[in-house]
Amino acid sequence: MKANFNYIQMIDHALSYSKKHHDRFVDELIELLRIPSISTDLSYSNHVAHAADWLVEHLKSLGVNNSKAIQTNGHPIVIGNIEVDPTCPTVLVYGHYDVQPADPLEQWTSPPFEPIIKDGVLFARGACDDKGQFFMHLKALESWMQTTGAPPVNIKFIIEGEEESGSASLPNFISEYRDYLAADVVVISDSSLFAPGIPSITYGLRGMTYIELTLTGPDRDLHSGTYGGAIHNPINALAQLIAQMHDEDHRILIDGFYDRVRPLSADERKSMAALPFESEKWAQEVGVDIPVTESGYSVLEASTSRPTLDCNGIWGGYTDDGAKTVLPSKASAKISMRLVPDQDPDEIAILTRSWLESKVPASMAMEFKVLHGAQPVMINTNSPAMTAATEALNDVYHRPPYFMRIGGSIPVVADFKHLLGLDSVLMGFGLDSDAIHSPNEHFGLDRFAEGIESIIRFHAHYASIEGSK
Amino acid sequence: MKANFNYIQMIDHALSYSKKHHDRFVDELIELLRIPSISTDLSYSNHVAHAADWLVEHLKSLGVNNSKAIQTNGHPIVIGNIEVDPTCPTVLVYGHYDVQPADPLEQWTSPPFEPIIKDGVLFARGACDDKGQFFMHLKALESWMQTTGAPPVNIKFIIEGEEESGSASLPNFISEYRDYLAADVVVISDSSLFAPGIPSITYGLRGMTYIELTLTGPDRDLHSGTYGGAIHNPINALAQLIAQMHDEDHRILIDGFYDRVRPLSADERKSMAALPFESEKWAQEVGVDIPVTESGYSVLEASTSRPTLDCNGIWGGYTDDGAKTVLPSKASAKISMRLVPDQDPDEIAILTRSWLESKVPASMAMEFKVLHGAQPVMINTNSPAMTAATEALNDVYHRPPYFMRIGGSIPVVADFKHLLGLDSVLMGFGLDSDAIHSPNEHFGLDRFAEGIESIIRFHAHYASIEGSK
Repeated sequence: MKANFNYIQMIDHALSYSKKHHDRFVDELIELLRIPSISTDLSYSNHVAHAADWLVEHLKSLGVNNSKAIQTNGHPIVIGNIEVDPTCPTVLVYGHYDVQPADPLEQWTSPPFEPIIKDGVLFARGACDDKGQFFMHLKALESWMQTTGAPPVNIKFIIEGEEESGSASLPNFISEYRDYLAADVVVISDSSLFAPGIPSITYGLRGMTYIELTLTGPDRDLHSGTYGGAIHNPINALAQLIAQMHDEDHRILIDGFYDRVRPLSADERKSMAALPFESEKWAQEVGVDIPVTESGYSVLEASTSRPTLDCNGIWGGYTDDGAKTVLPSKASAKISMRLVPDQDPDEIAILTRSWLESKVPASMAMEFKVLHGAQPVMINTNSPAMTAATEALNDVYHRPPYFMRIGGSIPVVADFKHLLGLDSVLMGFGLDSDAIHSPNEHFGLDRFAEGIESIIRFHAHYASIEGSK
Repeated sequence: MKANFNYIQMIDHALSYSKKHHDRFVDELIELLRIPSISTDLSYSNHVAHAADWLVEHLKSLGVNNSKAIQTNGHPIVIGNIEVDPTCPTVLVYGHYDVQPADPLEQWTSPPFEPIIKDGVLFARGACDDKGQFFMHLKALESWMQTTGAPPVNIKFIIEGEEESGSASLPNFISEYRDYLAADVVVISDSSLFAPGIPSITYGLRGMTYIELTLTGPDRDLHSGTYGGAIHNPINALAQLIAQMHDEDHRILIDGFYDRVRPLSADERKSMAALPFESEKWAQEVGVDIPVTESGYSVLEASTSRPTLDCNGIWGGYTDDGAKTVLPSKASAKISMRLVPDQDPDEIAILTRSWLESKVPASMAMEFKVLHGAQPVMINTNSPAMTAATEALNDVYHRPPYFMRIGGSIPVVADFKHLLGLDSVLMGFGLDSDAIHSPNEHFGLDRFAEGIESIIRFHAHYASIEGSK
């Protein structure tokens, strides 16, 4: 009981500090958001490296003196740790300092890398995904350091720069640094609240298989007048292939695609149905007239707990202004499939390739590339860290969090599980309406503050629970 | 008989002149080919205007002193005429000095606007389509002017700069200048020989309806993780629409599409089957393994005398390097339909729109634009001008020309018929393998010389036939 009492006193000091310094915290975040650290576009590599260096300096300024940026085959990974006491539990904080590309630029109301605050909301690429979120962990640490001298848990950081391009370097890095990264739990803030003021903890994530497909018909672009009628057009052929991927019930027709899908349990469906979710309002927010789901599943079920197949991009032929009468040589599409437990991204890639090979017409040469893959994940909701997170969120929001499955992928959660044996606590403070991956990405500064407070409280609860075992 | 004798003497002089000055003719053509007069791209407007001015000056240098470039709402139209004698028949020469865009640039082995000659073949954008071909008419005129002082027929020129972007200004111009353009026949060199050394006269042209289609789902790009599974993807929806446009026999499924199609006559099918055409060689030349046609039609029939539907371009979502997990707001396609008599481009646009409106899913907003249209054409093959052309080609190639239908569109042929009541003689010297509209467009200089000779001989035969009526 003594320990708990102390933690509560300590929390008050740390929380007061974080409130008092809120505006400066935001100013520092804005500085980081100004760096266009787009990892998928190699012409931005210098900016990505700059963001990593900025982070190292910032961690050092907080007292993480051993922080450094480790070079990889891709972008650098920033690490650092504060060891308070070897008998304390250790929290490994994961985040990513890279961001999505900003296109289409013309749809931004303010430039993506010139952050501005409007009515308490911070607009910038990366404001929510993930700079704004992992930065809360740095500020929670600062709040402890500047008040009690140290957090009540050991804290390690691993902040990568390739999450938006598939985290190619991360798995090897985790293996190589497994001793350095040893911890009791991973904490990640890269997900969303269920709704404003309604906390949630994500226990299920979809995985992904992302492919690129190119069909080649004639070996050069042809005149559609001279040849049209006797040459199979690769755009039309590609459209035929894509059209055959779904049936009328929006089920995916790739052979074997659903074989390993773990059905939603009755309990899960019941608890999802009980969530305060309005499909109509949801549709209105994303500007569609009607949601379209796999038959037999609700919007929430279909967008979080069922696998999908979406074209992310398509191109071929003449796409500028005017009417060019070309019969193109090639047509391409980027296609991603969101996966659920127990689908395997490599197996799905093989099934997709086989299916495509069986469907591609003899008139077309097909090129098939796997751009990346990620394992789907389900996490035990009854661990000490989950309990601590539940209590922390209850303290801040005055209600227990919903336990949720989400539709996105955080491949590293699977990596931490498979390579280090660690579960992750996905305690995110975004909102689905934050427009991550879209123009005008934003993050409410109220949630930035709530996140810092939740993390401070989580540290205390987790130290208390693990200490009292 | 006296007249004929004179014509033959005169021909010899004109022909000798054209042979003697061949290399200079080519140098002049190269000068014109250096001007990148791309009409579909407004950023090239200055170059298009430059090409028109160059032509006016060149016509004046040949003795067409009244030549001028007339401004339109689009690009200028170059006119000029030589009136020899009001009792002589009048030939209206049509051509176009604009060219197709040159992309994809990286596939050219030499820059498109830096003409080079390799093994007697001239490589440049526009070498065949149509600068190299209409220029033969100027050099035929020069050959007459510099030897006999005047051609045996009156000659008028109308050379436009918008053929590759739909000839938007031409119909109004023809109406407005109908008196100026009054003639007995139109002669156009913008088509092909049947094969090297095998002349042909085109009597059938396909028309066209060219549309652009955009589907909009969500009002902004969304994250495919957060939303995938409950949002209809506009790329997938567009692929579904395109896929439904053809059945398995490659017939077009738009309701009413074939209603006005004039069936190929038994004679036409017989004469087409007799042409020395090898499907396998044809397929090899365009780099496809197998031709794909509407069931029941040969390659030649399907590519010249049956209507088509081809996607000319498609775009949507993320199309750069890497894997962006976007669920896009929009997807678009450019789609052109080649038409045959008696299909009407406006009616086909309406049928296509209605069909699309009946098929587009409720989850998508559709935008439908008609980019341009052209009437299909069939020409009487027994007119005096056709006979003169037949004789001229027989003189040059020592065999009578094939009468052919071709797959391309020359919308002005329909305009001259409907607005001026004039038939056209389509006497072209290209080859299907000249890569018009593709990288590495070229024109054999042997055909350039044969074309000039054929035109000189046509003038003489036509004057003779019309004079002896």
